[in-house]
Amino acid sequence: MLGKRYDGQDCGLARALEIVGERWTLLIVRDAFYGVRRFSDFAEHLEIPRAVLTERLRTLVDAGVLEPSAEPEPGGRAGYGLTGIGRELWPMVHGLMWWGARIAEDGAPGRRFVHAACGAQLAAGGVCARCGTVPEPADVLTAPMTTASARPRTDRVTVALREPHRLLQPI
Amino acid sequence: MLGKRYDGQDCGLARALEIVGERWTLLIVRDAFYGVRRFSDFAEHLEIPRAVLTERLRTLVDAGVLEPSAEPEPGGRAGYGLTGIGRELWPMVHGLMWWGARIAEDGAPGRRFVHAACGAQLAAGGVCARCGTVPEPADVLTAPMTTASARPRTDRVTVALREPHRLLQPI
Repeated sequence: MLGKRYDGQDCGLARALEIVGERWTLLIVRDAFYGVRRFSDFAEHLEIPRAVLTERLRTLVDAGVLEPSAEPEPGGRAGYGLTGIGRELWPMVHGLMWWGARIAEDGAPGRRFVHAACGAQLAAGGVCARCGTVPEPADVLTAPMTTASARPRTDRVTVALREPHRLLQPI
Repeated sequence: MLGKRYDGQDCGLARALEIVGERWTLLIVRDAFYGVRRFSDFAEHLEIPRAVLTERLRTLVDAGVLEPSAEPEPGGRAGYGLTGIGRELWPMVHGLMWWGARIAEDGAPGRRFVHAACGAQLAAGGVCARCGTVPEPADVLTAPMTTASARPRTDRVTVALREPHRLLQPI
């Protein structure tokens, strides 16, 4: 019903949403920050239809947000990694995570993001609460806030992310 | 095909996208930062079907992002304003505008955002390039970067935004 383009909205936001505004796309980008690289890992962790994932990954590669990774994954299928432009999305991805945790009915904060250099937690906008800078994602550690879950999951990514993990470190 | 919920994605980002991840919703929030309050102004400036706008506004009010404004607009229909929770989206909205302008093929930056107190432009994440702080949206002025347009528009909001305008100042 509504096309993918936002014609007439002469604004960087409209352009950004044409790329990352499609359903699931920012969750794919989030997983790429977590270090997910393989098609099969995205598919299992996100639990989305493979056809949708294929289409979203193609859009992200075409827009220069993701690039095929140097080492193909086992089985010969290429992996995906964030480009420089893609990594610039980190403060927005972190900001929306932070905001979403604020408005969640159960108040569950989900994950914690910590500046690896100083150990302080990131505040709104990905700013280190101690240093006042916005650390590069590669300088950020993430760890779960709680380990309990009503529905324990066993996919590779979920299991890897149960331990503290440095962003962009391949899973 | 894909539901509105992101079940199984135990993450603030998923919760945030359930609210602001629908098509057009972040553009409605952007317009609310610009000071748009009236239903008819949102509809004309965004050029979206009124039924879609009605549905998106309801979602935003239910989620506590917008609230009916104190003064009903002429004609008796209530206006809309950002709540405190809604205003917390500013760094992410600014960040996506900034990022989208970076990746636009024509490189058109669209609008400029300036810290009213010092006159310096905002950088990524809404950070004032001079003060190093993230000004509240009410302390931000926006102005067009260029005045030329292939398709000059005449709706109230577009016309008001041709001049420097303080965010959240009602249009």
